Amino acid sequence: MKMKLSRREILGVGSVAGCAAIGGSILKGANFATASPSAAALPWSWKKIDPAEIQERAYQSAWEKIGCMYGVCEAILGTLADRYGAPYNTFPVDATVYGSGGIGGIGAVCGTINASGLLFNLFVKDQNDLFALCSEMSLWYEKASLPNYKPKKPKVDIQIAKSVAGSNLCHVSSTNWANASGYKVMTNEHFERCNRLVADVAVQLVTVLNQYTAGNMTFKEKLNDFSLQCLSCHGPGNSEANVAAGMTCNPCHENPH
Amino acid sequence: MKMKLSRREILGVGSVAGCAAIGGSILKGANFATASPSAAALPWSWKKIDPAEIQERAYQSAWEKIGCMYGVCEAILGTLADRYGAPYNTFPVDATVYGSGGIGGIGAVCGTINASGLLFNLFVKDQNDLFALCSEMSLWYEKASLPNYKPKKPKVDIQIAKSVAGSNLCHVSSTNWANASGYKVMTNEHFERCNRLVADVAVQLVTVLNQYTAGNMTFKEKLNDFSLQCLSCHGPGNSEANVAAGMTCNPCHENPH
Repeated sequence: MKMKLSRREILGVGSVAGCAAIGGSILKGANFATASPSAAALPWSWKKIDPAEIQERAYQSAWEKIGCMYGVCEAILGTLADRYGAPYNTFPVDATVYGSGGIGGIGAVCGTINASGLLFNLFVKDQNDLFALCSEMSLWYEKASLPNYKPKKPKVDIQIAKSVAGSNLCHVSSTNWANASGYKVMTNEHFERCNRLVADVAVQLVTVLNQYTAGNMTFKEKLNDFSLQCLSCHGPGNSEANVAAGMTCNPCHENPH
Repeated sequence: MKMKLSRREILGVGSVAGCAAIGGSILKGANFATASPSAAALPWSWKKIDPAEIQERAYQSAWEKIGCMYGVCEAILGTLADRYGAPYNTFPVDATVYGSGGIGGIGAVCGTINASGLLFNLFVKDQNDLFALCSEMSLWYEKASLPNYKPKKPKVDIQIAKSVAGSNLCHVSSTNWANASGYKVMTNEHFERCNRLVADVAVQLVTVLNQYTAGNMTFKEKLNDFSLQCLSCHGPGNSEANVAAGMTCNPCHENPH
């Protein structure tokens, strides 16, 4: 894998090579700060993953920490780290537990969509593409009937009802599932649903990254007609221009006209 | 700083020490993957920062990439990296650009709240505290009249109207500001407002991390009465138990009873 070199790395104060070159002096108490490895410059090289290979890992990792963002990130970065080492193993995946429950349980964006953004950012250079990919995943998530994944070793071995999230927000997605399934939120059945959904999003994300990196990406998702009508006046560049969003409007807004 | 050692580090295949010990063999073409530095185990040690020191950096960094999540993360992790090197400089801060505009412009959670969650996760060990801190920041953000910061070197040198976000969602926060100020969204005036707000959130976040780490943290924020009434039936553990959220309900939901 060929990595772009950061200024620190060119200066030889970071990276394994720099670290090895000055290794002796570190142990003699040289400045630890500047001798330490700095972050590998982005984008990191995406290596094709067979989506089927990471489903169970995503599901099990999500259960391990009740972490939806963590489950997606651990399965993908962990798989790459196991196979290729750096830079994939330099990311502190444990730092993605916060994404659970829409950021520390506040019910905002689903941790799997947060994970998707972070992973696109690690592997995609062009910022327009990065934003387009985030939108593609979010719109797919809003409309998909999930979960699909049947775990090999389920923690809660029951039939899990599918539902359409209708929104990229954790609490909307979870409420729609609770209402569809009859189960309460914050129960093991709810977590089982979310952790199976983690596997589904990881599969979709890997599929998109495989396609994008191979130059085969086709952007398919669109806002629905209701939302496009809202944005035709309220969206950027239009008469009102007081709303900038790519989320489907109707889960929260009625047509006021 | 004392760090917990991960299994990889105990095995001596990661970290600067492990890297230095086997440095010679790396240069002779040993397995690059396993010889590479792996992520430093969490939590990282929080070092007190004077909030006033990072305001302008947060503002300028946010402008640099039109990155609200990036601005907060770059100012705080960049300051720590400049002073102390590793592990702070090992985090690929450029990977937080995706948080802009509520994740790639989709208008979901404000990038500053996303940044807050990520930074709490890097520095806070206890998961209950992590979640409580995320909630504290989100509720503070929802209610605060922002922006307060007056840049030393403003990119857009005008008076910027303050507004109350009312929600942790990017598009709600931005729309409330657009309606209060009379400016359109996705204009330089809008970005100026958001990037000053980045400085304000960075200050609040550093203040909270300083207090929490010193054992002086007092959790002050509460959901409003409207939201508490909603959750008294719909929240986890109550009769309906079909909503799990710590976001204020009334920006999107009317009282249906």
